[in-house]
Amino acid sequence: MSLEITVLGSNSAIPAYGRHPSAQILHCKNKLHLIDCGEGTQMRFHDFKIKKNRIDVIFISHLHGDHYFGLIGLLTTYNLLKREKPLHLFAASELMDIIQIQLKSSNIILCYELLFSPIDADKSKMIFENEDITVETLLLNHRIPCVGFLFKEKIHERNLISEKIKEYQIPFTELPSIKNGNDFVDMKGNVIKNSELTIDPPAPHSYAYCSDTLYHEAILPQIKNVDLLYHEATFANESINRANTTFHSTAEQAATIAKKAAVKKLLLGHFSAKYENLELLLNEAKTIFPDSEIAVEGKTYLV
Amino acid sequence: MSLEITVLGSNSAIPAYGRHPSAQILHCKNKLHLIDCGEGTQMRFHDFKIKKNRIDVIFISHLHGDHYFGLIGLLTTYNLLKREKPLHLFAASELMDIIQIQLKSSNIILCYELLFSPIDADKSKMIFENEDITVETLLLNHRIPCVGFLFKEKIHERNLISEKIKEYQIPFTELPSIKNGNDFVDMKGNVIKNSELTIDPPAPHSYAYCSDTLYHEAILPQIKNVDLLYHEATFANESINRANTTFHSTAEQAATIAKKAAVKKLLLGHFSAKYENLELLLNEAKTIFPDSEIAVEGKTYLV
Repeated sequence: MSLEITVLGSNSAIPAYGRHPSAQILHCKNKLHLIDCGEGTQMRFHDFKIKKNRIDVIFISHLHGDHYFGLIGLLTTYNLLKREKPLHLFAASELMDIIQIQLKSSNIILCYELLFSPIDADKSKMIFENEDITVETLLLNHRIPCVGFLFKEKIHERNLISEKIKEYQIPFTELPSIKNGNDFVDMKGNVIKNSELTIDPPAPHSYAYCSDTLYHEAILPQIKNVDLLYHEATFANESINRANTTFHSTAEQAATIAKKAAVKKLLLGHFSAKYENLELLLNEAKTIFPDSEIAVEGKTYLV
Repeated sequence: MSLEITVLGSNSAIPAYGRHPSAQILHCKNKLHLIDCGEGTQMRFHDFKIKKNRIDVIFISHLHGDHYFGLIGLLTTYNLLKREKPLHLFAASELMDIIQIQLKSSNIILCYELLFSPIDADKSKMIFENEDITVETLLLNHRIPCVGFLFKEKIHERNLISEKIKEYQIPFTELPSIKNGNDFVDMKGNVIKNSELTIDPPAPHSYAYCSDTLYHEAILPQIKNVDLLYHEATFANESINRANTTFHSTAEQAATIAKKAAVKKLLLGHFSAKYENLELLLNEAKTIFPDSEIAVEGKTYLV
């Protein structure tokens, strides 16, 4: 299993230079998870050949429009396409009111089930879990309640050494227990150590999505050692005052968070429309954390 | 003076084949008027180099999302850009509630004045007037209250014949009266007929925007002889039952309206996502009304 992120929108509130407001897809096996949904996200699916019917879960970080104005269009498109599967939506509780007033005005009753889970931005918790991943909220520091999301692969089962399984004639029914790390005991009571039958599985991967926030060290313990950190980098150093007053970060601050959390790689995004060229932001980040990269729309990043 | 229409979105609800939901710009002198505002309209401004700060009036035909989901993004972008001029919005009254709940959730107080005029979809009336044009509503027949818009140039002033003005030594202060069709009376009481001093002005132009509607002859008297009729043509003949159940029109029905209203030219739009190629719709329309054309995004049409 691997996690992958496709960036659909890398800009902050005003679309500019072909860059769009926030949206990302987290791929895990054949399942797609949508993270934020700025205006035009459904068109970005088309641009980048994202199979929108594979999305069953949507996470919205906060209710600034550049993170959710594309949601109502997506929900009503699913309705027109006669979606049958439920859709799970995690967001601030007011979003359901915003959706309902718009459905009511257009006299639409969704033909599929919209499962809504309000997010509490005051307390970090695990909000979602399936067989492959867990999702925890990260409490960010923005002008309105705002969370990030920490996606973690579950710990994998141990890998069987097939020659050893054959050699000890281990029955098929015992394999799940062995994959879970247990020893094998044969009919005569002989114990064969798990370490002789299995090797370590690949380490589980983790992805942290942090947008939008002031420089905020409180998240460090949760994002420690993640494989990939996406952190907003709205401004360059020259605009640090503007970053502070608007509760955003500079690229250097994003890199400082990455360094202090000892993450493996940093992806910068949520760029101000004032920057046509993003080299300045990238260079400022790299002076602090060399393994920094600019989030490019349409590009897929292995976590 | 001339009126021009730039098509920004030509598709119906589901964006497809690079076609977008409804939005058009009516140009009149240096003023731009936005008609409908589907998702992504602000990106279309960028694509087609539309100067969005020249827009002071927005008309929304009805509250199906493909006609207004791009509005909230545009309003908040104007706020971020520190717009100073008022913006006048004409739409169904519920739209103000939809806007306000979204502004409230994001803690935004607009820095400019949003002048809202609710549209009554039960009674046709003149809803807007400036020095150049008037705008009347057209009562359409759709699943929810829906109006079209009839834009009419005002009757122009008569054109002065400059040689005659000089010959009779007519004072500057008398010219406005003569442009309005009055005769000139000199100091001695001699009457010089207006017809000797002026020639006819160009005929005023008119544009009718009709989306979305069932085939609906009740609009014929109002749109009689307009220079350009935009009429929705969601389906081809093979889907006439679907057109009826969804309260939309076929291309042939749009053409029949154009023919019966004796309009000069018909522009077809609001195409279903089921048609990648629009030749079928165009051909069906042309059998009834030869001067039919497909609305192409980014193209500007002289009214």
